[in-house]
Formats: sequence, structure tokens, C-alpha cells
Amino acid sequence: MYELFIANKNYSSWSLRPWVLMRQLEISFEEQLVTFEEGGSWEKFRSFSPNGQVPCLIDGDTTVWDSLAIAEYLAERFPQVWPENREARAWARCAAAEMHSGFSALRNICTMNCGVKVELAKIPRNLQREIDRIDELWCLGLQRFGGPFLAGGEFTAVDAFFAPVAIRAKNYGLPLSESARAYVEQLLELSPMQEWIADALREPWREPGHEEELKSAGAIVEDLRQ
Amino acid sequence: MYELFIANKNYSSWSLRPWVLMRQLEISFEEQLVTFEEGGSWEKFRSFSPNGQVPCLIDGDTTVWDSLAIAEYLAERFPQVWPENREARAWARCAAAEMHSGFSALRNICTMNCGVKVELAKIPRNLQREIDRIDELWCLGLQRFGGPFLAGGEFTAVDAFFAPVAIRAKNYGLPLSESARAYVEQLLELSPMQEWIADALREPWREPGHEEELKSAGAIVEDLRQ
Repeated sequence: MYELFIANKNYSSWSLRPWVLMRQLEISFEEQLVTFEEGGSWEKFRSFSPNGQVPCLIDGDTTVWDSLAIAEYLAERFPQVWPENREARAWARCAAAEMHSGFSALRNICTMNCGVKVELAKIPRNLQREIDRIDELWCLGLQRFGGPFLAGGEFTAVDAFFAPVAIRAKNYGLPLSESARAYVEQLLELSPMQEWIADALREPWREPGHEEELKSAGAIVEDLRQ
Repeated sequence: MYELFIANKNYSSWSLRPWVLMRQLEISFEEQLVTFEEGGSWEKFRSFSPNGQVPCLIDGDTTVWDSLAIAEYLAERFPQVWPENREARAWARCAAAEMHSGFSALRNICTMNCGVKVELAKIPRNLQREIDRIDELWCLGLQRFGGPFLAGGEFTAVDAFFAPVAIRAKNYGLPLSESARAYVEQLLELSPMQEWIADALREPWREPGHEEELKSAGAIVEDLRQ
């Protein structure tokens, strides 16, 4: 049985990627949730993850400590992690890798917080550019491979990599095209996404660092957390 | 024949990854070097790369626009891109993906400039931490899989992903353990690396943005460029 180490569902966008991928593809795993520590979680997370970060997948003696590496590791056993079509697979890997290394303005300004809706104080130029790129990328994928998922008819790792963006898009009211907004809604309706968000809203923990990041983005419009 | 779009060899660390991988594995390609533009290259690079960045691999009708996605794309046809051993392969993918998404202090402070040696004004705590992590990661890989490369006896994509770090380590005199320094020297002695660096030193172009970044890191000790 795989063990998947994640952090707070409310905050940990990187954890959501393999979690929703495995749930949606019905790959069984045992969830190990370790909460963020005030002032930094590196030392705490080092007890199970070599780079002190989440997510981290444990498969017997094998430790896989990066979300994209987890996708590739699983893909060796479960080819449905990536699209079956060769062109779609190349595209999906590019889009997932682009998310993996990029979009720093979106990450830094619109930190994931499942339970809170924020009205952005402003949309700086670098953030607008990233939003435009995501919109373009999604629309291209949906059009080229026929939807309803980014690289065709099935949910694959590229959708998992943009799942946290769907939560951000909704909660920060990001300006997106109609097609992109429809894709966001579709992702959020998936039952693993609903399960993740429901769990996040029930979490009692408030980590001051993440809460501060949120406040610096704009005005809190709604806090749905219990 | 593959076409590999790269930018200036002197500056473009991301371009070096697939370039050295393909050269070292003797995967033929046609090099397309497009120089950085002062003030931003996004529009120029968009003419061949969907995200306006390099590297970008063109294979007939297929465009692969991210360095890690290029590695995975090539690996489908050339399995030697990753280690043959399953454990080593999982480790190599984690380490490459960790480099892909992380080490922002190293990237921002010690920008790659093949021709210039710099004495760092100081090593901030976040940079020191990243240097320590790279040292640890390299030593673990070399020890666990027996060397001389990071994941065993053969040069694979994980070595390609750390090739730009080897140039930075040398040029900024980064404080590394003896084993890590020996690995740096070994990478730099590879004939594709020597070819890349020789080409970089011959480039006539100076892009002001990259040159400024360099100066803000510390004192220029030596400029080997023609």
C-alpha cells in the first residue's frame, strides 16, 4: 500500500496534486497528513521527506519526494496517469512541467486557502500575464484534444497539476475566459476535489504564515472554515 | 531530425540541460540558437516556443517546450535518458524535479554566466541552505548508486539537470564538500560541457539584464570571454 504524506489540505497546493490524481484514478493509498509548523516545517517534514517538503510518496523501501516525480513513478505502473495518445502525452507533460517550475506570481500572491474568498487588491502585471498564459494553455488543450479534460477525454496528471489553480481561480475571482471558467467548475465538481475541500474546511489549524500571505493579497470576502 | 531551440550558451542554464543530455547520449539534433533580447525575450521566443521560453524541442509536428518534459519525451524513445535500475530511476526523477521547481536563491543570486568568475559579496542564509541541500543530495546519490554519476555508472538526465549548477559552483566558488567538488570537476570535464563553455566564451553578445544580475552578486574576479 502506498503512503502519501501531505500537509494541511487547506493550504498545501503541492499536496493536492498527487492526492487528487490518485483518488481520481482510484489508486489506493494511505493518507498521512502532517500539519505545517509555525515558522517553518522543514525540520518536521525531514523526518519522512528528504527535501523537507510535501508531498512525499512512500512505496515500501522507495521514497518519492516530488509531485512530478510521483506522477512519473506512478505512470510506470499505471499508464493512465498520462494520456494514451502520444501527442497529448507530450503536451500534458509540458503543461504540467510548466506549472511545476513557473507561475511564481500566482503562487506567491494567490496562495491556496481552500476556505477563504479574497477580493484581490490589484492584479499586478506579472500576475495578469500568468493568468493569461494559463487561460491560453487551458483553452488550447481543451480545443486541440477535444476535452472535457485538458489533454482529452480522461482526467490525467496535467489536470491534477492545475487542480490547485482551479481553487485559486474560484477563491480569488481570477479573470478568466468562459471556457477556462467552465473547466474550473468542472474540476471543482469532481468528487475527490469536493472531498479535499470539505476536509480542508473542517481543519481546525490556522498557520500564521499562510494566513498573513492571504491578507496581503486583498480583502477577505468570506471565510467558510469552521 | 530533432531541432533544439536554445538561447545564449553563456547565460541560458535551462537550455544547457537538454543540450548536454542529448550530446552526451549521442542523440542527434540541429541546434537553433536564438539570442536573448534586452528587456525581455518572451515575444521573440513565442515564435517557436508556446510559453516564450527556452529550451524548446521540435520533433516534426510535435513541440516540447520544457526541459523536464523534453527529458521524458526523449526517454520514451531512448530509455537511457533515465537510469535502468528502478530505484535509481525514481531517485533521479525526484532530484531532477527538485531542481526543476526549487533552488530559487541559487538561481537568482548565482545566475549562470559561463565566462565570468565572481567572488560572492555574501552567502545569505537561504542560499547557504540550498548549497547544503545540493551537496547532501549529490553525496547521497553518489554513495547510494556507486557513482561516478549521480544515479550510477552512466550519465543520465539528473546529471544534465545539475550541469548548470556545476558551472555556477565553479564560477562563484560555492562552498562544497570534497565529494561534491569532485563531481563538479567531473561534469565540467565532459566533452559536451567543454564544448558548451567554449562556445559560450566565444559569444559576442552581452545582454544588460544578465550582466547586471551578475554584478549584484559580488565582485567580478575574472572575465574569460573574448
